[in-house]
Amino acid sequence: MKYCSECGSGRIDLTIPGGDDRHRHVCPDCGIIHYTNPRIIAGVLPVWEDRILLCKRSIQPREGYWTLPAGFLENGETLQDGARRETREEALAQVDLHDIYTIFNLTHINQVYIFFRGSLLDGDYGAGDESADAGLFSAEDIPWGELAFPTIHETLGFYLQDREHGDFPVRTRDIEPMNRG
Amino acid sequence: MKYCSECGSGRIDLTIPGGDDRHRHVCPDCGIIHYTNPRIIAGVLPVWEDRILLCKRSIQPREGYWTLPAGFLENGETLQDGARRETREEALAQVDLHDIYTIFNLTHINQVYIFFRGSLLDGDYGAGDESADAGLFSAEDIPWGELAFPTIHETLGFYLQDREHGDFPVRTRDIEPMNRG
Repeated sequence: MKYCSECGSGRIDLTIPGGDDRHRHVCPDCGIIHYTNPRIIAGVLPVWEDRILLCKRSIQPREGYWTLPAGFLENGETLQDGARRETREEALAQVDLHDIYTIFNLTHINQVYIFFRGSLLDGDYGAGDESADAGLFSAEDIPWGELAFPTIHETLGFYLQDREHGDFPVRTRDIEPMNRG
Repeated sequence: MKYCSECGSGRIDLTIPGGDDRHRHVCPDCGIIHYTNPRIIAGVLPVWEDRILLCKRSIQPREGYWTLPAGFLENGETLQDGARRETREEALAQVDLHDIYTIFNLTHINQVYIFFRGSLLDGDYGAGDESADAGLFSAEDIPWGELAFPTIHETLGFYLQDREHGDFPVRTRDIEPMNRG
């Protein structure tokens, strides 16, 4: 932040406000404190019969790598709305959501990922604007070496384990930068 | 947003950028798009023996009403860190976290609440800086008419039901503005 979005001042301090214990961007001219907070990424693990829908990214970061449909939650959206929207946009697919399944803290980039399990409504899918390809993968065909993000790797791993028992407890994990493949 | 935080311009447009489908604050001078996204509130339902720890708020909003420890997740924090910090700050208590328990969408104020179940480590607690009082409440003593937020009411209600069966599935709900007591 270089300028105050409230008054236009170019004098933004990084300081600990009274009664606080963290550094914030504070405008010394109008006094406003500019808070920033972690963002949510909502996603889905969409299944059709015994296969999992993955999309190949056509945009950065991680262009050319495979991902589950997921993206930043927007203002005015529920987690469920966001997860379904990303599935429509990235995989041109309609999904029936089940329970929340995985939750990841990525403190180094101030993100929280939340994935639902889901079922494709009709088996239709395709490559959306941000995807170069989309496909249904059996367990033995998952491109483990070409997955876009650690959150995808972890969610798929948990799912294949949990599917054997038919029980899908919520899984929470912290993702550290060095885990990035 | 009145001024661009990147270049200081006072000409901020509310427009749909190319390739997007939502209105954003866009600076016509430097071209930057200013995204805003929902914020996360992390909290705890802290239990000691068979009683639940509540805090009476000493700040607005809902000053004088009872709440579970909860607050905005900070950058660099995990959900768990945030939930524990709020319990220390608001209730001067140390808590051992169990699983994520309730998740609420509050789309009208762009917030997602996430509560963990937890156990007090040693039974110690008190009123923190943002609390006028704190106390352990049995089921029959919960001040239902004096709870601060619908998320608190719902979380306590789920807990008392689920405790009878000893099973605490993750509960997700949408909170609408008209539910506010």
